[in-house]
Amino acid sequence: MDFAFDSVTEDLRERLIRFMDECVHPAEPAFAEQTAASGWSAPPLLGDLKDEARKRGLWNLFLPGEDGAGLTNLQYAPLAEIMGRSPAIAPAATNCAAPDTGNMEVLSMFGSARQREQWLRPLLDGEIRSAFAMTEPDVASSDATNIATSIVRDGTEYVINGRKWFISGAMNPDCRIFIVMGKTDPQAPTHRQQSMVLVPRDTPGLHVRRGMRVFGYDDADHGGHAEVVFEDVRVPAGNLIGEEGGGFAIAQARLGPGRIHHCMRLIGMAERAVELMCRRALARSAFGKPIAQQGVVQDWIAESRIRIEQSRLLVLKTAWLMDTVGNRGAHTEIQAIKISTPAAVEWILDKAIQVHGAGGVSQDFPLAALWAGARSLRLADGPDEVHKRSLAHRELKKWT
Amino acid sequence: MDFAFDSVTEDLRERLIRFMDECVHPAEPAFAEQTAASGWSAPPLLGDLKDEARKRGLWNLFLPGEDGAGLTNLQYAPLAEIMGRSPAIAPAATNCAAPDTGNMEVLSMFGSARQREQWLRPLLDGEIRSAFAMTEPDVASSDATNIATSIVRDGTEYVINGRKWFISGAMNPDCRIFIVMGKTDPQAPTHRQQSMVLVPRDTPGLHVRRGMRVFGYDDADHGGHAEVVFEDVRVPAGNLIGEEGGGFAIAQARLGPGRIHHCMRLIGMAERAVELMCRRALARSAFGKPIAQQGVVQDWIAESRIRIEQSRLLVLKTAWLMDTVGNRGAHTEIQAIKISTPAAVEWILDKAIQVHGAGGVSQDFPLAALWAGARSLRLADGPDEVHKRSLAHRELKKWT
Amino acid sequence: MDFAFDSVTEDLRERLIRFMDECVHPAEPAFAEQTAASGWSAPPLLGDLKDEARKRGLWNLFLPGEDGAGLTNLQYAPLAEIMGRSPAIAPAATNCAAPDTGNMEVLSMFGSARQREQWLRPLLDGEIRSAFAMTEPDVASSDATNIATSIVRDGTEYVINGRKWFISGAMNPDCRIFIVMGKTDPQAPTHRQQSMVLVPRDTPGLHVRRGMRVFGYDDADHGGHAEVVFEDVRVPAGNLIGEEGGGFAIAQARLGPGRIHHCMRLIGMAERAVELMCRRALARSAFGKPIAQQGVVQDWIAESRIRIEQSRLLVLKTAWLMDTVGNRGAHTEIQAIKISTPAAVEWILDKAIQVHGAGGVSQDFPLAALWAGARSLRLADGPDEVHKRSLAHRELKKWT
Amino acid sequence: MDFAFDSVTEDLRERLIRFMDECVHPAEPAFAEQTAASGWSAPPLLGDLKDEARKRGLWNLFLPGEDGAGLTNLQYAPLAEIMGRSPAIAPAATNCAAPDTGNMEVLSMFGSARQREQWLRPLLDGEIRSAFAMTEPDVASSDATNIATSIVRDGTEYVINGRKWFISGAMNPDCRIFIVMGKTDPQAPTHRQQSMVLVPRDTPGLHVRRGMRVFGYDDADHGGHAEVVFEDVRVPAGNLIGEEGGGFAIAQARLGPGRIHHCMRLIGMAERAVELMCRRALARSAFGKPIAQQGVVQDWIAESRIRIEQSRLLVLKTAWLMDTVGNRGAHTEIQAIKISTPAAVEWILDKAIQVHGAGGVSQDFPLAALWAGARSLRLADGPDEVHKRSLAHRELKKWT
Repeated sequence: MDFAFDSVTEDLRERLIRFMDECVHPAEPAFAEQTAASGWSAPPLLGDLKDEARKRGLWNLFLPGEDGAGLTNLQYAPLAEIMGRSPAIAPAATNCAAPDTGNMEVLSMFGSARQREQWLRPLLDGEIRSAFAMTEPDVASSDATNIATSIVRDGTEYVINGRKWFISGAMNPDCRIFIVMGKTDPQAPTHRQQSMVLVPRDTPGLHVRRGMRVFGYDDADHGGHAEVVFEDVRVPAGNLIGEEGGGFAIAQARLGPGRIHHCMRLIGMAERAVELMCRRALARSAFGKPIAQQGVVQDWIAESRIRIEQSRLLVLKTAWLMDTVGNRGAHTEIQAIKISTPAAVEWILDKAIQVHGAGGVSQDFPLAALWAGARSLRLADGPDEVHKRSLAHRELKKWT
Repeated sequence: MDFAFDSVTEDLRERLIRFMDECVHPAEPAFAEQTAASGWSAPPLLGDLKDEARKRGLWNLFLPGEDGAGLTNLQYAPLAEIMGRSPAIAPAATNCAAPDTGNMEVLSMFGSARQREQWLRPLLDGEIRSAFAMTEPDVASSDATNIATSIVRDGTEYVINGRKWFISGAMNPDCRIFIVMGKTDPQAPTHRQQSMVLVPRDTPGLHVRRGMRVFGYDDADHGGHAEVVFEDVRVPAGNLIGEEGGGFAIAQARLGPGRIHHCMRLIGMAERAVELMCRRALARSAFGKPIAQQGVVQDWIAESRIRIEQSRLLVLKTAWLMDTVGNRGAHTEIQAIKISTPAAVEWILDKAIQVHGAGGVSQDFPLAALWAGARSLRLADGPDEVHKRSLAHRELKKWT
Repeated sequence: MDFAFDSVTEDLRERLIRFMDECVHPAEPAFAEQTAASGWSAPPLLGDLKDEARKRGLWNLFLPGEDGAGLTNLQYAPLAEIMGRSPAIAPAATNCAAPDTGNMEVLSMFGSARQREQWLRPLLDGEIRSAFAMTEPDVASSDATNIATSIVRDGTEYVINGRKWFISGAMNPDCRIFIVMGKTDPQAPTHRQQSMVLVPRDTPGLHVRRGMRVFGYDDADHGGHAEVVFEDVRVPAGNLIGEEGGGFAIAQARLGPGRIHHCMRLIGMAERAVELMCRRALARSAFGKPIAQQGVVQDWIAESRIRIEQSRLLVLKTAWLMDTVGNRGAHTEIQAIKISTPAAVEWILDKAIQVHGAGGVSQDFPLAALWAGARSLRLADGPDEVHKRSLAHRELKKWT
Repeated sequence: MDFAFDSVTEDLRERLIRFMDECVHPAEPAFAEQTAASGWSAPPLLGDLKDEARKRGLWNLFLPGEDGAGLTNLQYAPLAEIMGRSPAIAPAATNCAAPDTGNMEVLSMFGSARQREQWLRPLLDGEIRSAFAMTEPDVASSDATNIATSIVRDGTEYVINGRKWFISGAMNPDCRIFIVMGKTDPQAPTHRQQSMVLVPRDTPGLHVRRGMRVFGYDDADHGGHAEVVFEDVRVPAGNLIGEEGGGFAIAQARLGPGRIHHCMRLIGMAERAVELMCRRALARSAFGKPIAQQGVVQDWIAESRIRIEQSRLLVLKTAWLMDTVGNRGAHTEIQAIKISTPAAVEWILDKAIQVHGAGGVSQDFPLAALWAGARSLRLADGPDEVHKRSLAHRELKKWT
């Protein structure tokens, strides 16, 4: 047992921290301004940052194997944390932003040669963005058997009908390709009904309707969260990813690393929140002394530190398990971090907001927006309650 | 001891519920649309609703004495709860919306004849709106001794300099008058340094800079929350409310009823949240049964009901105390409801959101916006922690 | 709506407080010593206190109607709170101690003339104690349909077989009579299977096996919590209370007032805990200042005050509902106080313990023992979870 | 970074688990019976288990260096967890029980040759037990500057006067030696006032007064928690441990490993609690289905698993830090585990109790006693609040 990072990780951490300090954090104010002006498109500034990151070898770090940087989950995790300190910029600047990351993984693992050439390559090069269309407004789609979107084979094509929402990134016009989850065979066994197909943005019948808000935020800097309607959308049969009925398995494979990324970025946000909380508490006085001397604020700071340390260790161990025994062997831990990390970070952000007074809920500090992101992760990929139940079943099975 | 409402209250509750059912709830969709289109101004629809409310005798219910409906705090409280079920419309439609309510109370109690004629009358008639400018960005203004805005006597005028923010309602161009809190004598005893002056919106030097966001929301339907700068703003000496050095006392007098209103409206929001949570849980199925049959959801519903009942009773008792022994005698309870009600309602809204899945955080349900409102009330009028400390001091004093 | 006690209540409160101050609190140390020496029997001192209470007219206050003091639930509730400040002595001294209270209610409402003469009279006179034998070790007896004890008619007798535990008071040899819940007809509809019979302590086959501990406490001052085995126990048919199949209904009738009593006594304990917490915090210094000046301790004190006020109001309203619309109409509230009061008081006691340091968990302060009592009430009469589920069902039904 | 145990640890874990399964768990019922009969002395059975453990090479595993098994903190930690599954027996059987462990560490690190020969040797051989006398009833002794016991040099002797309590193990007559913390120089700098001296049990003036209870438990199987009075107790000057004024530093050195041991044993208790909770939930039915199928119970089980995993990782990392950068470098983590582990385990035990119904609070399951132990660890070595404050100070210092 050894809690030190290996030398590859240490080297990349250093270089990434330098990139954050020299390029990302200084760009934050201008980025925010450009975001406000650029609608759903990415701010022009992002292009420069991407060039710089690529030049520095900080590119596609998330992707194992030859297509990417070749890091293990355990090596990438601490880098995702660092990116999380500026979540609107750093992941996108290093081509490590969701949902592209998961989509690239899917194409890298399951894509045909043609799919890889046509979509994976430009994604790896950061030329386009992508979306993953799974969640549906009309059913509890955390239960995959509920998915109502249909994908019907018709000659050499698939015909897609359905309604999706909270399709992150899809409001950005640079999002050129959608991976769509639907049912090809509703009569098949529960986990063989679903398939995934690639649908280019311009395909007739694909309507990007509107951006869903998250606690008032449109998240335009992430390309928003679109409601998308598929009306008799036709794509060539070659757009199927993997095989018919393989959709559920692909979704599962996509989940594990995504959880690590999300959770580590959350921990980066939490570290930033603790920094802001401490700085504010030291700078602001009330009733004759700095807020930092108030016992309740100290209690929050201590609790925040503890929750961060515990959360980070569990995510890192989960990454290690995925690397050593695979996603299946890490099932309990993957669910555990999905449940515990957003809740912990939400708590920390809430306290940081409270220390900032009215400013904390406003646009003058990043805290409220980060909070909304953390809160929505208690629902994304299924509400916590679904995962707790599943985790409990596994625990109970030990004693049956 | 008797927990039944008196007949005046019962009659008004019935009429108000009828108004909600016949006019307010049906207007909600159109109101939301008009809000999106009307910028910071009130939606035209509001005018009709105000006419209707006035016709029905549901007007200025909040205001005791001859200027208003003459109700006690205990009689008005359950009406505020009912309004809280549609907080963007009902309070404004009945001329019972903050911060006008508190401002009218101040003018009714402390205003000179001229002030009452010039500002109270049009406020009572719902012709104009008003703002209360107290919170400052640069200091912990929950500690009134920190207030930095200066009000300096210069001949027959007062000259005001300072920066305020989160001035609710002030983005609305109909907001014609500001009550401004500042220091007239920084050398006076702690609670005699502050004064309040009336500053008409058009006064040179008064700059409404921007709307502050609350978790991404601009709250345009409430006239937003403005940052306002006062640069050498000059008003006649007659615009002083009450006497020099009386600002703190006026602020205290204004607080009590405001807390009752806020808390009861919150309870109304909570009731609506429970209704939405139950309806959703009954309508949505996952893993083979309605969500309403899941134990954790039932736990939330039960806890919500309990917290609502406890919160309501404490607010009602506080209102009764204010009516019978005055604000001073109700000090502990006024602080207690300020601390406990927003926290309870925030919790309930969080659970209602969770039951709604991704939709819960979006614009398709009112829950996320209500949540943001409840959350910000844990900071408004001073963060909870300030009030807890003060309440504890009073408790400790019993045993000293 | 009126939050003041009526004059009957005020008068009794005053007299009871005087009795507490003059007789009960001064007797606490001697009572504790005698308890340690007197095994399962009541300390001799209790007899004197009972004489005194009776002389002062503070006797059987809990019992409505002609058999008792004739108070309403709302009138008795604040008296139970006062008794709760010394829960080992005051209820017993005033003949208002569980489980006798509930048993006397049952006999008063459902007992035959002979049962009343033989058992109710000496109970009303405080000559004997009694037990209520419902909970069973082998089943989840919060679900009454699970009860396994059998009561079989055999000629002019009933034959009882079964095992009960946590039969409070039964270790005390003065406990002369058991009300036993069992099944007379396992084939009847769910809530008509159970009956109650009176079983005198000396009946052959009734074995009081051992005292169950509650977190290490034997609760000898309450007569302990016995495990009792019934082996072919025979009682005359006339010992049936009410009718065959009426056991469930009697148990329900018994529950309501018992909840009020338990909850109000808990609130009295909580008030005592706050007093002890404040006194200790004022008296003890660490790191250069009294603990009372530490923000976290102040936070606990404020929260404690708020939770007490909310809890008390909900219990009082429940008592009022029971008096005005009956137990059925107060069903939601009766469950609500059962769920919320022990949890609130347990929380307060935990904080009071923490303020007392190591002493808090020891025999030198009453806090740890009170905590164990509050904790066990989250299980008594069925665990909280059962009541939450039932309460939620009722809430959901509103929207079905 | 590597989350696997090394081979030394794996080997010892296997052997220890075998010892638990073959010897410890089977002995639990007899041990409990003997405990009830043997007063404050150890049950005779313990001797056999000690012989067996020693034969198996499972002896003094806690002690690094040549005096003990020579394990690192990281190697010993998982063994302490295994022992924690039977906390009354396994630590004592393997000569790894507090407070002997800490006392042996002190003597091993700071003892003179004579002290080591006289006291360390028989402790290492398990022939005697020992006590650590630090906590005082009259002051908040978590602040070491408050300690009131005096140690005064008088010729060739030290004279000790003071009162201590919660001196764990001291009720056991086999406890032959006390390490006593007191002040030798109240005028010295804050952390140079304290010294430690060895006081044999039979020294005149040393009075073991009574056993302190912990939530009703006397903890006789651990030798209880004694109140001890020192009245003009005289020991030779050679009984000083280390140097005058070195008491605080020795206490600090003693703390680190002790925290690891306590926390890992707690985690072992938590694992046992989860096992019991699951088994009970599977075995018991209510309202027509096993409790294990109730959502709320599943929620508890999932939360328990998560909290255990997080807690364990943080303790292990702390052990690793202590091994690699020393106690000072692990200061934050040592405090973090002291704060978070007892709280997490207390929560888990509370839920396990709730699943067991009334039985959970009784002597029929180990849960209530384990709970009392976990709860008291929120106070032992100073209440959580003291550690949180200190941890927060360190966090704040980063940004000053």
